Amino acid sequence: MSPVAGGSPPRDATLARMADLGLALPPLRPKAGRYVGYVRAGELLFLAGQGADGWTGRVGADLTVKHGRAAARDCALNLLAQSADALDGRLDRVRRVVKVLGFVACTPEFTQCPQVLDGASDLLVDVLGENRAAAARSAIGVQALPLGFAVEVEMVLHVG
Amino acid sequence: MSPVAGGSPPRDATLARMADLGLALPPLRPKAGRYVGYVRAGELLFLAGQGADGWTGRVGADLTVKHGRAAARDCALNLLAQSADALDGRLDRVRRVVKVLGFVACTPEFTQCPQVLDGASDLLVDVLGENRAAAARSAIGVQALPLGFAVEVEMVLHVG
Amino acid sequence: MSPVAGGSPPRDATLARMADLGLALPPLRPKAGRYVGYVRAGELLFLAGQGADGWTGRVGADLTVKHGRAAARDCALNLLAQSADALDGRLDRVRRVVKVLGFVACTPEFTQCPQVLDGASDLLVDVLGENRAAAARSAIGVQALPLGFAVEVEMVLHVG
Repeated sequence: MSPVAGGSPPRDATLARMADLGLALPPLRPKAGRYVGYVRAGELLFLAGQGADGWTGRVGADLTVKHGRAAARDCALNLLAQSADALDGRLDRVRRVVKVLGFVACTPEFTQCPQVLDGASDLLVDVLGENRAAAARSAIGVQALPLGFAVEVEMVLHVG
Repeated sequence: MSPVAGGSPPRDATLARMADLGLALPPLRPKAGRYVGYVRAGELLFLAGQGADGWTGRVGADLTVKHGRAAARDCALNLLAQSADALDGRLDRVRRVVKVLGFVACTPEFTQCPQVLDGASDLLVDVLGENRAAAARSAIGVQALPLGFAVEVEMVLHVG
Repeated sequence: MSPVAGGSPPRDATLARMADLGLALPPLRPKAGRYVGYVRAGELLFLAGQGADGWTGRVGADLTVKHGRAAARDCALNLLAQSADALDGRLDRVRRVVKVLGFVACTPEFTQCPQVLDGASDLLVDVLGENRAAAARSAIGVQALPLGFAVEVEMVLHVG
């Protein structure tokens, strides 16, 4: 929705909170194939999986859990950028993060996928607050991710 | 919903069937990270992935298919416990299991993930009946699961 | 819905387009376990994961990216067959492919899962057109798939 001519754009409290936290929405990442970043169906917004540039390799071998958490955090920022794009820049319209599905490229013995994914969940809580960010989540350790990404996260939002 | 003072709690036919089968809802498992066990959006209830305590290792190496089935069954019981928690203890409000996504930590040559996941599906059919439990399902063999779990299962319910 | 006795069946433009492309809906694959091919909840149709017969092995070792694309394409055809079964043979009732989740059995170093999954996405665009086929997608490289399949794809449709 464009602001009324001559008026100010409506203030988005969520974006304001991001700014207060020193966070900015990253540019939308280029797609790796023939798909789109999000599709809305009714009040659900389904987001494509997002990796995080600069974080490639395998957690437990090339990368530590701390690295993995940073990668997951950047995935969440990329997901928020897509969400803002879907919602005319109004992240206030995110009512709830319904579902998070996170994949971690890791070694066979790795058991700390939840700790890695907390990097994404913590960021979402920081930005959206606990009530809106508390999501049903699954964390899965996998063989390989697109472009060699260490982490990939997708989510479903309830939006207004 | 609490029963009316002086009255009896409403009888839940699904819980009664569980009791007849000698099954009880397990306690809610502690969360492994910053997420919640379920989120409702409209008539859909999205459940976080559940593992099964006591079942760790890799199917095809440390564990047999039979072990994996038992693990998947326990995942389904944990999912039913979460569902009951979401639905004020009224499993009768589960109209349909819409979607099941199951992950099996396995060897690269393992081909029997469906047989493993049938441990969860069979339990759901036993408790909910064929009409309500027949779900769209995907079964995926993965590298590693949280806490070293052998199986993790998530699902989406249509609820009333 | 059966055609009225004596009348002609309603023409489905999507099926007609498939025929123009020289494509036919394959028979429904036998299920590998205790689940169903699809479940509808409101306007969303959730489809079970589909593999593709004849395409087994590991992309990056036994199979090339080109093979993987062909497997993914056949997965998409199997998903369309399930969709037609769910929608009384009327693929025109597919409003939008909302979400695609694709799994590729691959080597640990494999980075081209998106290229493999494009085999499915390209087919969906050919059949449904860009507007209806453009979906949010995630592509994941995994350890092992049912029956040794190289690729497995599930999707969520918005249907009328």
